[in-house]
Amino acid sequence: MATRENFIIDTEPVPPLRDGEIEIDTKFVSLDPAMRGWMSEAKSYAAPVGLGDVMRAYAAGHVVASRHADFREGDAVVGVFGVQSHPVVDGARALKVDTRQAPLERWIGGLGMPGWTAYFGLLEVGQPKAGETLVVSAASGAVGSVVGQIGKIKNLRVVGIAGGAEKCQYLTEKLGFDAAVDYKAGNLVGDLKAACPAGIDVYFENVGGAVFAAVLKLINQNARIPLCGLIADYNATEPRPAPNLRPLLVKRALIKGFIISDHSGRAGDFQRDAGAWVRAGQIKYREDIVDGLEHAPSAFLKLFAGANFGKLLVRVSPDPTRRAT
Amino acid sequence: MATRENFIIDTEPVPPLRDGEIEIDTKFVSLDPAMRGWMSEAKSYAAPVGLGDVMRAYAAGHVVASRHADFREGDAVVGVFGVQSHPVVDGARALKVDTRQAPLERWIGGLGMPGWTAYFGLLEVGQPKAGETLVVSAASGAVGSVVGQIGKIKNLRVVGIAGGAEKCQYLTEKLGFDAAVDYKAGNLVGDLKAACPAGIDVYFENVGGAVFAAVLKLINQNARIPLCGLIADYNATEPRPAPNLRPLLVKRALIKGFIISDHSGRAGDFQRDAGAWVRAGQIKYREDIVDGLEHAPSAFLKLFAGANFGKLLVRVSPDPTRRAT
Repeated sequence: MATRENFIIDTEPVPPLRDGEIEIDTKFVSLDPAMRGWMSEAKSYAAPVGLGDVMRAYAAGHVVASRHADFREGDAVVGVFGVQSHPVVDGARALKVDTRQAPLERWIGGLGMPGWTAYFGLLEVGQPKAGETLVVSAASGAVGSVVGQIGKIKNLRVVGIAGGAEKCQYLTEKLGFDAAVDYKAGNLVGDLKAACPAGIDVYFENVGGAVFAAVLKLINQNARIPLCGLIADYNATEPRPAPNLRPLLVKRALIKGFIISDHSGRAGDFQRDAGAWVRAGQIKYREDIVDGLEHAPSAFLKLFAGANFGKLLVRVSPDPTRRAT
Repeated sequence: MATRENFIIDTEPVPPLRDGEIEIDTKFVSLDPAMRGWMSEAKSYAAPVGLGDVMRAYAAGHVVASRHADFREGDAVVGVFGVQSHPVVDGARALKVDTRQAPLERWIGGLGMPGWTAYFGLLEVGQPKAGETLVVSAASGAVGSVVGQIGKIKNLRVVGIAGGAEKCQYLTEKLGFDAAVDYKAGNLVGDLKAACPAGIDVYFENVGGAVFAAVLKLINQNARIPLCGLIADYNATEPRPAPNLRPLLVKRALIKGFIISDHSGRAGDFQRDAGAWVRAGQIKYREDIVDGLEHAPSAFLKLFAGANFGKLLVRVSPDPTRRAT
C-alpha cells in the first residue's frame, strides 16, 4: 500500500524558459489510480517515476510565459505536467482547450483522458449492442460514470457497482443508471444477479478482486470485458490471483486490455460525440475537489479506499507571491 | 478428481432399429479432457451426462445395420456415439468419413474435432502473423500437436510446453517445433524465457495453472490468447484462481474463449487445408491407443496426470459373439 511517507513536498526556483518551452500556472492536478503503477518498478506501459522526481500527473492550468509560437499568456492548457504549481514544459507536450465550452477542470475529467477511456473502452473494445446489459465497476468514478452514461445513450441496460448507498443513489437518480449495486452491502453476487436478470453482456472492468469474480458468474455467451484497471490489486506486493477463467471458456467470452494512449489518433470521434453530449446535458460529471497542492499525497491515497466520490482533483491555491516572469 | 469408481461397465441388449437409425460397430472411442466437464453439474456449454447414462464420447466405427437412407452396411462413420461397443443412433448424428484418405482413427483425431479446434483457435482467435512467436501448452497432445504444426506451416516460431524429456524431444525432432519446454524440469519461467527471446505473441491455452502464469510474464504487446481448455483445473472442487491479469492490461492483450461446436459451419476451410497438409506430410499425428473398452475409465484418468502421449483412444476389441442384426 502506498503511504503518505512515499511523498515529500519540495520547493525550488522555476527554471528559466528555453526556446520552445512554456511556463504554466497550474489550477488543477488530476489524481488517478494509474499513478500507483507509475510508482512501481514493475514493467508497465510507461517508465516508472524515479525516486526524487516530480510525481507524474495530468494537470490543467494557464500559460504564464511562452517561448513557443503556438502559445501565449492566458491560454488554457492540459497535459502531463506533474504535481507541481509552476511546471515548465516543452510546448509540444501541452494541449490547448476551450474553456468557453466547458470549465477548465472538465478537460482533465469527463472531456479528457477519463472520458476518452470510457468512450473507447466501452464502444471499441466492448462493442455493445442496444438492449444488452452493461455492468461497470467503480461506477461513480472518473471513468465509470461516463461509461454508464454513454451506455444509456446507446440504449443499454446499465448497472453500476459502487461502494455505499450515497454513490449508488447518485448513479440511479442523477446519472440515469437502471440499477446500482453496493459492493459494501454484503450480498454482491445476489444483488448483482437481481440487477441483471438477463445476465451480463459487457463488463467494463475497473477494479478486479471480488467484484470481477462476481461478474464472471453472470456473464452471457460472447460477453466482452474491456479491461481498464484492476485497482483492487494496485497496492498488492504480490499480484493477487484472478478468479478462475473457466466462465470465459464456457461462455466464449473475451477479455481485452487497452491503454488509451495507444489510440490517441482516434480521439476525434470522442471529442465530437462527447462535446455534443455534454452540451445537450446527456453526460453529467462530478468532481471531488481537494484544495491545496500540499494535500495531493493524502488525497491520492483516498482512491484506494474508495473514499473519493467523483473525479479526484486537487485545486492549486493561488500564490500571491508568484508572478509570471 | 474423477476416479475409477465414477464409472461402471454394463451390458444390455442392442435395441431394435427404428426408422432413421443406424447401428454402429465401434472401433475407436476418443477420450478427451472435455469429458470431465460433461461429468459435472456445473453450468457449461453442454448438458451434463446423467448418473447411469452412457458416458458421452466421440467415437468411430462401421455401420452394421441401417434404417437411414444415407447409410449402408460397411460405411465408416464418426460422431458422438458414447463409450459403447454397439451404439444405435439417429443417422443425422453420424458423419461419413473416407478411410482411403486417412485411417479411421484419424477422423476423430487430427482430422476431427481436435484438429478443427487447433485450426480454428490458432488462426481465427489467435490471428498469428508470420515471424511471431507461438507458445502452445499440452503441446504433444491431440490439439496442441496440430496447433504447433499449423504454426510452422504459417511461418511462426513455435515453442511447445510438455511434460518430460521424451515428449519434448518428440516436439522438436518429429514435429518440427523450434523449441520445447519441459514443465516438469523445475525451471519453467527461465526455460520459457530462453525459448522465447522475442517474447510471446500468441499463446494457445490448454492447461491453466502454473503454465499460464509463466506465459503471462512473457507476453508481448497486443498478445492474443485463445482459451481452449484449462485442464489443470478440471478436477478442482473449488475453481482455482487464475494468475493476476495485470499483464493483459499493461500489454493490451486479449484472452478469448471459444467452443468449436459454435463454428462448425466454417469447418470447410479446415477440411480442405488439413486434408492437403496431411497428404503432403506436413501434419504428423500420434495416437496413444489403449486396447479394450473395459479400460476406458482408467485410460481417461491418464489425461489429468499428463500420462498419455498423443491423442488418447480406446480400441474396441472385436467381439466374435456379436453379429450385426
